[in-house]
Amino acid sequence: NQTFELDSNPHTRLNVLTGEWVLVSPHRTKRPWQGKVEDVTPDNRPEYDAKCYLCPGNGRADGDSNPNYTESFVFNNDFAALLEDTPAGKMNEDDLLVANNQRGLCRVISFSPKHNLTLPEMSVEAITAVVNVWQDEFNNLAENNWIKYIQIFENKGEIMGCSNPHPHGQIWSQSDIPLEIVKETERQKTYYAIHRRSLLGDYLKLEQKKNERIIFENDHFAVLVPFWAVWPYETMIISKRHVNSIKLFTEAEKKSLAEAIKILTTKYDNLFETSFPYSAGMHQAPVNNGYYPEWHWHMHFYPPLLRSASVKKFMVGYEMLANPQRDITPEFAANRLKEMSTIHYKTSKA
Amino acid sequence: NQTFELDSNPHTRLNVLTGEWVLVSPHRTKRPWQGKVEDVTPDNRPEYDAKCYLCPGNGRADGDSNPNYTESFVFNNDFAALLEDTPAGKMNEDDLLVANNQRGLCRVISFSPKHNLTLPEMSVEAITAVVNVWQDEFNNLAENNWIKYIQIFENKGEIMGCSNPHPHGQIWSQSDIPLEIVKETERQKTYYAIHRRSLLGDYLKLEQKKNERIIFENDHFAVLVPFWAVWPYETMIISKRHVNSIKLFTEAEKKSLAEAIKILTTKYDNLFETSFPYSAGMHQAPVNNGYYPEWHWHMHFYPPLLRSASVKKFMVGYEMLANPQRDITPEFAANRLKEMSTIHYKTSKA
Ligand SMILES: O=P(O)(O)O[C@H]1O[C@H](CO)[C@@H](O)[C@H](O)[C@H]1O
Ligand SMILES: O=P(O)(O)O[C@H]1O[C@H](CO)[C@@H](O)[C@H](O)[C@H]1O
Repeated sequence: NQTFELDSNPHTRLNVLTGEWVLVSPHRTKRPWQGKVEDVTPDNRPEYDAKCYLCPGNGRADGDSNPNYTESFVFNNDFAALLEDTPAGKMNEDDLLVANNQRGLCRVISFSPKHNLTLPEMSVEAITAVVNVWQDEFNNLAENNWIKYIQIFENKGEIMGCSNPHPHGQIWSQSDIPLEIVKETERQKTYYAIHRRSLLGDYLKLEQKKNERIIFENDHFAVLVPFWAVWPYETMIISKRHVNSIKLFTEAEKKSLAEAIKILTTKYDNLFETSFPYSAGMHQAPVNNGYYPEWHWHMHFYPPLLRSASVKKFMVGYEMLANPQRDITPEFAANRLKEMSTIHYKTSKA
Repeated sequence: NQTFELDSNPHTRLNVLTGEWVLVSPHRTKRPWQGKVEDVTPDNRPEYDAKCYLCPGNGRADGDSNPNYTESFVFNNDFAALLEDTPAGKMNEDDLLVANNQRGLCRVISFSPKHNLTLPEMSVEAITAVVNVWQDEFNNLAENNWIKYIQIFENKGEIMGCSNPHPHGQIWSQSDIPLEIVKETERQKTYYAIHRRSLLGDYLKLEQKKNERIIFENDHFAVLVPFWAVWPYETMIISKRHVNSIKLFTEAEKKSLAEAIKILTTKYDNLFETSFPYSAGMHQAPVNNGYYPEWHWHMHFYPPLLRSASVKKFMVGYEMLANPQRDITPEFAANRLKEMSTIHYKTSKA
């Protein structure tokens, strides 16, 4: 009679932040791959591209020209999914056709004047400048009291729908609270009501005790593969201090966050010796909507690659219709990332 | 002062089946696309491929050989994500690390002996044979009383992670009820408790009255773009009779379903004159778990293409971290699909 083992038997794991389960199939990595392989975009972009709307001095779709910026640079998205001047309105027919207007503001942040410099290749100081912009933008957007939530994120790589290779991130802020934040608020609130402590704070302590999924720690942040990770090399950065938004980060914390981002993204690039694609973003408390003591700032990284620079995990049929599913275990992924060097492969080869 | 219009202002719409919202940005189609374009796989496969593990007579990974089948052919997935003999087991540390074993059976269905024949190119009779297999498989799997849910689906096209171009579908059945089914059960149950009628039945009646999103109807099924569609050309097939699973379909209904599938997938192929990729699958009541009078059988089609055979919608950063988002409206998509011919573009060109 066999005993049940997480590293070899199919099982489900609970995502304590959303209340949803992921199906884990540890034995399934043996599956041969005859399907789609991605083109690996050769990584030989110039430092400046005259046709790029993010490079310093160049023109943009709205007719403006970018300044000759030297650190990061922020502007309103010229093709924003959300607009500030959307008229108010609602529709409801028999509770079957239900719609509401949505107001919002979308911002774009160029991370660096250099067209070819991704986060892992930037210095901690330069990444700290990006963190400063994130904090300033968060604070400024929150001044609009109709804005209820601010989503700071980055799509990195063509495979993640990034429409311009110049390293940049986005901020979408809006008048309602989006789905993932509704879920995470509910779970954190329930936990806080029972324990009077932060859910993620307690989770982090347990992970520190176990030491099976933690990849990196500094004074203020821990980087780990969550127990319930869906994407093959999914990770989370969790702040050690229980704060509910980036607004409260000190200078020391911002520098530590920049360091954590640099180390994590360097390990990612080293894993398959490629500019590692992902969507990443911060989750934090809604704004202008009361008090959220339960909320604990964190940042998710959702990278699609599974086996190599060209073979990704497809979240398709079963996953779209039934339940998220993964093949390698979170512990396997954490080990791989732990053993990766913190020196970028391009530097060590140069 | 503007008034709020669904076809031009950003808004959210409620998915009545899941209780989740989608963000719609109708004005955003003007966005220029400088990002990733997909390779369009040339559609010139042979009728038989000696290296394909689905073609008649060929060998498979488990050592078996396929029979010389003439309609559809079903077997156990040689690289199944779920296994029947998973030992029982549970883990729970402080409600923070929570896992359960999961048993299951995964089946593969080759739709046709011909390596190059997709559903829209098959006859209604040949598709009816596939529907018969789906029904038989559903009934047989449900005989195992530890199985609680049976997911019948198809991943079509490389872009949807389909690892073998020979047209085929899959069935994953398992000992727990997966996420999407939990959500749809809850919403249908609540509606049924109040109205004593099926949620989807009432929704379909309202759509018939409006006639803005219906693409096709026959005696037993309607095909429409749901009001809350997330994917650009997402559709649903809804049975006119309120039955909770494929088990209850009559011979006439099975033939009508085959016709609806043929017409929908033909329109899809005609839209961008390409073999249109999607993940599609049926949603139906759980099995061996009590009585589900509220459940109404339906089939979802989630196709990723947005503008052409090579430009898809990316569900990335904002969508993964915050909320699903779409650019074109469901009404625009429904109109485009309505005007497509029901004659396959390859036939009409031949
Ligand atoms: O089973 P296949 O076709 O090899 O694999 C495909 O479908 C599965 C079920 O949707 C997914 O888990 C895989 O990521 C996908 O590549
Ligand atoms: O704004 P971009 O980079 O043009 O677009 C990208 O990110 C957006 C936000 O995640 C997505 O809605 C788009 O599908 C994606 O292509």
